[in-house]
Order: sequence, then C-alpha cells, then structure tokens
Amino acid sequence: MQNYEEKTIKKETLYDGRIFTIEHHTVSLPNGKESTRDIVLHNGAVCVLAVKDEKILFVRQYRKAVESHVLEIPAGKLDTKTEDPLEACKRELEEETNFRANNWSKVMTFYPSPGYCQEALHLYQAEELEEVLEGALPADEDEFLDIVWIELEEALQMIHNGEIIDGKTIIAIQQYKMQLLESKLARIEENLTKVAKELA
Amino acid sequence: MQNYEEKTIKKETLYDGRIFTIEHHTVSLPNGKESTRDIVLHNGAVCVLAVKDEKILFVRQYRKAVESHVLEIPAGKLDTKTEDPLEACKRELEEETNFRANNWSKVMTFYPSPGYCQEALHLYQAEELEEVLEGALPADEDEFLDIVWIELEEALQMIHNGEIIDGKTIIAIQQYKMQLLESKLARIEENLTKVAKELA
Repeated sequence: MQNYEEKTIKKETLYDGRIFTIEHHTVSLPNGKESTRDIVLHNGAVCVLAVKDEKILFVRQYRKAVESHVLEIPAGKLDTKTEDPLEACKRELEEETNFRANNWSKVMTFYPSPGYCQEALHLYQAEELEEVLEGALPADEDEFLDIVWIELEEALQMIHNGEIIDGKTIIAIQQYKMQLLESKLARIEENLTKVAKELA
Repeated sequence: MQNYEEKTIKKETLYDGRIFTIEHHTVSLPNGKESTRDIVLHNGAVCVLAVKDEKILFVRQYRKAVESHVLEIPAGKLDTKTEDPLEACKRELEEETNFRANNWSKVMTFYPSPGYCQEALHLYQAEELEEVLEGALPADEDEFLDIVWIELEEALQMIHNGEIIDGKTIIAIQQYKMQLLESKLARIEENLTKVAKELA
C-alpha cells in the first residue's frame, strides 16, 4: 500500500461555532504539489440502538439542515473531546427518551463523512430498558422531539421507502437485522443437525 | 405527531468553499423562542457498492479530516445539485477504479449527518464489472488512491475491528451481507419444504 499522507503546510480557522469549527488547510500532496482541504472539526458524538422484543426506540425531530422531520435513533454530541462515550450514551438516552438501560454493549465507532468532517460517532446497543417515571434528565432547551417505537421489519421497510434517511440510524437498524438473521440461521442449522442425527 | 418545524428568521453565509458552504440560521422554535443553527450546505454525493463473487471493490485514500488512510467504497460529489446520481456513479467508478458496470441498481438515498449537514448520499449497487483497459476517465488531480478487493466476510470483520470506519461503506457492506443472508435463508427454506414433502 502506498503512503498518500498529506502534510499540513498552513492552517487557518474560518469559523468557530457551537456545533463545529471550520478549518482551511493548505497541504502538500504525495506528488509534491499543493492543494487545500476544508475541514469540519467536531467533538464527536454518540448514538444508541435501544431494543426491546424486536422493536427499536426512535426519536423524531425537526432537522433544519434538511428542512424536515427526521426519525433517528437517540444521539447527541460529546460535551468534550475526552468525555466517555458510554456516559454520554446514558445521558442522551435518558434526556431524549426518559429511558435507562441495564445492559450496554459497544457496537462500533464510525465516521459519517471522513472526506471533510472529523466527527466520530460511537454506536452502543442498549437492552433491558426501564422508563424513568420521575426526575429524568431534562431535554436540551432548544430540542423538541417525539419518542417512537418501531418494529424492526417496519423500520427496514421505511429505509426502503425513504422514510428513514439518517445514516447512523440505517447502520443501527441493519446491524440489528444482521444479528437476528445470524441467530435465526444458527438455530436452523442446530435443528437441522438434530434432525439429521435422528434420521441417521 | 407534533409539528416541530423551525422557521428561518434570518440567514447568513459564513463561508463559501469548494466542497461546502456554511450558513448560520436564526430560527423560531416551536415554543416561540429563538435559537441558531449552523448548517453545512453540500451538493450531495454518490457512492457505489461494486460487487463480484462476494468481493467488494474499495478505494483507499488519505483523508485529511481524520488524518489517516481510509478504506471506502468508490464515491464522489455531484458536480451540480441537479446532476443525475447514476451518471455521477458511473463517472466516479471509472475515474477512481477504471471499472465500468453493466448492471446498476439503486439501493437508497441517505443523509450522513442530518443534524447539521444538508448532504444527501445516493448509494447504487454495480454488478457485471468490466475493467477499462485503455482510455478510462482520469482521476482528479489532487486524488491519490489504491484499489482494493475485499471478501464480504473479511470486510465485516474489518468493521468489527475498526479497520473500516467510513459510514457509507459500512451501510453498503451491511446491505450486501443482508442480501446474501436473506437469499441463503430463502434457499434453506425451499430445501426444507422439499425435504418435508419427500418425508410426507
């Protein structure tokens, strides 16, 4: 494999906002020429695949960037670059949905747009959910959302129909579907082995 | 479902770059208060799940935003907001990999980061691949990449290990795995029905 690293010759902050910072880098390319890269700096975020009986927990909120209401799994930014992602998951799940979970597992970390955006997104799976009936963490002041439970098969259909359009949410739904398909196949294979023995 | 639409009171362009534009919107919230939204405007992009014998075609390139080499499916920006995504897929596949495909199908359109970025990403599946041996479209001047074929099961393992970290690429791999699992299940069920008839 070739090394195509781009060395930073100069960088400039173009905008420093609440959600992201924009930097303009001048870089030297592998062929010695120069180019520029505009980069979105971001602390990183978390998202939660919360499941119960083959249903998935979603939030529905208005997203100004795409000018429409979007169904997403619960998610939120890290408060600082070094915040523990699992703690952030627990906070966001409770703030957005009033649920806590007793069983957490890491699914993966991925980058939604590594072509120009530094954001890393940490996906966790939450099971054994309990609704917090009193004193749950309050939602952010400028966040308005509905909580929606959707059956896995319906969620897959909604991806197909273009009703679920959020990348992290699609990854989470597909991940859950693969888990269930794999365990269904394993059960079938186990049963076939039993039947083969009985017939032998 | 509640309507949580946020109306634009004022908007301002903070930066107009080669890949994206940054806007700062002042919005009125559902409760009548005001807030601000920083938005990344983007023409949209395409990506291609190119498959052959359960192998997937990847490109590996340096991504300045995440300061590392990243394995991704072939992808690229739309030249204009109205460019036909399928035409863009064909161009990007040929420019980046020297392959053309005789069989194209739309998988889905999704939004990598609808929380702050307008970018829509159109995913197509390409089959019946043919290498262009002479006169293929040239790669972009500032793009340096390697072409890599990876077996589906190895690619899944690489997601698990954190060696494949690009969101669109993960969606494409999961999609392909689900297709194969579904057709494997369908074959098993068909065979079981046959066996049941023979035993009856």
